[in-house]
Amino acid sequence: MTAAILTIGDELLNGQVVNGNAAWIGERLTAYGVTVERSVVVGDDQPAITWALTELLQAAEVVICTGGLGPTHDDLTREALAHALGRPLSRREELLGPLQDYYSGRGRETPRGAEVMADVPEGFEPIENPVGVAPGLWFSGELEGRGERMIAALPGVPHEMRVLMDEAVLPRLIERQGEAAAVQTTLLTAGLGESAVVERLGDLGPWLSDNLRLAILPKYGEVRLRVTALGASNGEARRRLSAFLDYARQQLGDLVVGEGKTDLAAALGQLLRDRGLTIAVAESCTGGGVGAALTSVPGSSDYFLGGHIVYSNQSKVSVLGVDSGVLRAHGAVSEPVAVAMAEGAREALGADLAVSTTGVAGPGGGTPTSPVGTVWIACADAHGHRAVRLQLGGDRLTINRLSVTAALDLVRRRVLRG
Amino acid sequence: MTAAILTIGDELLNGQVVNGNAAWIGERLTAYGVTVERSVVVGDDQPAITWALTELLQAAEVVICTGGLGPTHDDLTREALAHALGRPLSRREELLGPLQDYYSGRGRETPRGAEVMADVPEGFEPIENPVGVAPGLWFSGELEGRGERMIAALPGVPHEMRVLMDEAVLPRLIERQGEAAAVQTTLLTAGLGESAVVERLGDLGPWLSDNLRLAILPKYGEVRLRVTALGASNGEARRRLSAFLDYARQQLGDLVVGEGKTDLAAALGQLLRDRGLTIAVAESCTGGGVGAALTSVPGSSDYFLGGHIVYSNQSKVSVLGVDSGVLRAHGAVSEPVAVAMAEGAREALGADLAVSTTGVAGPGGGTPTSPVGTVWIACADAHGHRAVRLQLGGDRLTINRLSVTAALDLVRRRVLRG
Repeated sequence: MTAAILTIGDELLNGQVVNGNAAWIGERLTAYGVTVERSVVVGDDQPAITWALTELLQAAEVVICTGGLGPTHDDLTREALAHALGRPLSRREELLGPLQDYYSGRGRETPRGAEVMADVPEGFEPIENPVGVAPGLWFSGELEGRGERMIAALPGVPHEMRVLMDEAVLPRLIERQGEAAAVQTTLLTAGLGESAVVERLGDLGPWLSDNLRLAILPKYGEVRLRVTALGASNGEARRRLSAFLDYARQQLGDLVVGEGKTDLAAALGQLLRDRGLTIAVAESCTGGGVGAALTSVPGSSDYFLGGHIVYSNQSKVSVLGVDSGVLRAHGAVSEPVAVAMAEGAREALGADLAVSTTGVAGPGGGTPTSPVGTVWIACADAHGHRAVRLQLGGDRLTINRLSVTAALDLVRRRVLRG
Repeated sequence: MTAAILTIGDELLNGQVVNGNAAWIGERLTAYGVTVERSVVVGDDQPAITWALTELLQAAEVVICTGGLGPTHDDLTREALAHALGRPLSRREELLGPLQDYYSGRGRETPRGAEVMADVPEGFEPIENPVGVAPGLWFSGELEGRGERMIAALPGVPHEMRVLMDEAVLPRLIERQGEAAAVQTTLLTAGLGESAVVERLGDLGPWLSDNLRLAILPKYGEVRLRVTALGASNGEARRRLSAFLDYARQQLGDLVVGEGKTDLAAALGQLLRDRGLTIAVAESCTGGGVGAALTSVPGSSDYFLGGHIVYSNQSKVSVLGVDSGVLRAHGAVSEPVAVAMAEGAREALGADLAVSTTGVAGPGGGTPTSPVGTVWIACADAHGHRAVRLQLGGDRLTINRLSVTAALDLVRRRVLRG
């Protein structure tokens, strides 16, 4: 099945807004086995929208468009659909009640002109919008000279578009592909890069098909595997998904941090909470980034006590009790200093665990023994400590982000094995 | 002048990559007074690229396309241009030398097939690429049935595209608009939101015109004003720009953090370095974010000593010496605690200045006196302290980011006034 995406709005043309909707829709369609042929952006201009619809209906079986469904004078998608398909608009009286309810439920008068949102081109059906006011529109049928076509018109507000896409549009497309159901999940891994993760997965040939698709999405040391399974029934799709997940988890072992909507900091937080452990940080090169990541998780005060940012050598000694002789002998970017930092923070805050970072984020500050990108991380707990040397590539921001991921992952592994 | 944007690449259609190039080009063209009419994405597919070129040359006077200029079999832009315009490709021998030099300069053999990058459609001129291997292509002239048209084909790698756009394409467009020169700069402000900044600017009517454009770009408490001035000469454009900048600086006073490529942390860092001051942080709700922002700046070890992340009440007392009676009486999110944290960190690290944050980032943890979004920030120095209460909206991430900006800005103002 082929598709085209039409995103509508002046703000997308003049660069005020980056076109996240088109990327999201493209990714979703691809995951469900639909090939995206074209993607077009036009402004709030009826002839331009009509041109785009006409061209895209020529090029693809499905056209997904977003934006221009609101009540204001620059919301022109309904008129353009009617015009491009030569089908008149008619007002659906049954949609007026829900429109008024939407506004009165928010203590507002129904704005003048809002009733245009009840106008639907002939042959289209409205798609209920459970998270906003403007209904979506759906068409499926024969178009003269073009064959069988499907059209979805969705609101431009990203979270409304996503809900309507997931709940109304994708199920209809899957059904049309001859499958009744699709299920999707994400496995989050940390500790290895994209290509190493793929290698660990082994031969995927027997697994991947039109009914089971895998996307690999790397980001600063976390690698997400998004898996989509289709099936003739929900049960079949679920069985297909779960067989693959079992295989992937076996291959990947403790690289797997979690499944579904999670990130490394949240998964580590859950692990710490489950085991009743507290944590502290001692940060040099990351400058507070590990603490910021840990506290990005709601409720992190249950396990995160705090920590020390010891950017200067002086502060490593005075705040964390790092031995100044060790610092002189080994340099700040060294295993003994990383370990002393973690142990110092653990003691100072009375935490079960502490993690430390010390490295050269660049662009300056490299030495022959510790070039830019050298980072030591260490984790200390009641049983002892573990330290790891990283040699990272990229700019200052990248080195910092990768260091934060590696530090969180070091703790995760330590807790899992403890 | 009207323009259309064509971005080429399968990765843009399937959502692997969000289309930042189209947004950047759209923003740039708009700033220079060019209206973007359409933006199209097609995959690495010759007929699709040809279709898009044909349609877009109908719709707009200028077509900017990116991607598909490399040496591999899926780089098809040259062929598509030749096809769409009915102009044969011919190899420009004078481009072969620079291609070989590019690879040999990197110690590599010239890859097989690289010579296709020297193929240029008739009537086009190559645009030298100072930051990559594939040259861009430029056309300006009469196209049968369409009138005067301009076409730029640029590499898809964002930083290459940007350099060629700024150095070769925009100057040609400006010249075509009857102006010889354009100059652009950005004023960075902090401390007030977008609408308050606009209000402080006063009546812009006498200033703005086709020759002087202003874009307002807000992000987490920083507001950037991007100003573009055109003129018949570079001198005229510069005079126009500088007259407006003088006016804007006078209206905005100490809201202005800096000009050009800077951010608040870098501007504050420069200020601290200039005055020979050192700084420490004491973070509760921001969890390390202020430290991470300060250390995002290369060379920040010159003035940033470190700090304390005191997430638990216990750590506020044990690490920073906050009086536990004060903590009990006023609560952790209070002026006296924020001040005691800043003073404690300043003393512990022997810094000239320290800044603290304590607040409720949510979603839980709000109380009637300190609802979610309440944040106290304080700055302490040798002369005393200053504390500010913020009441912020948004989710946890937004509240944290806004708090970091406010904390850095509080220090900036204190240093400026000290």
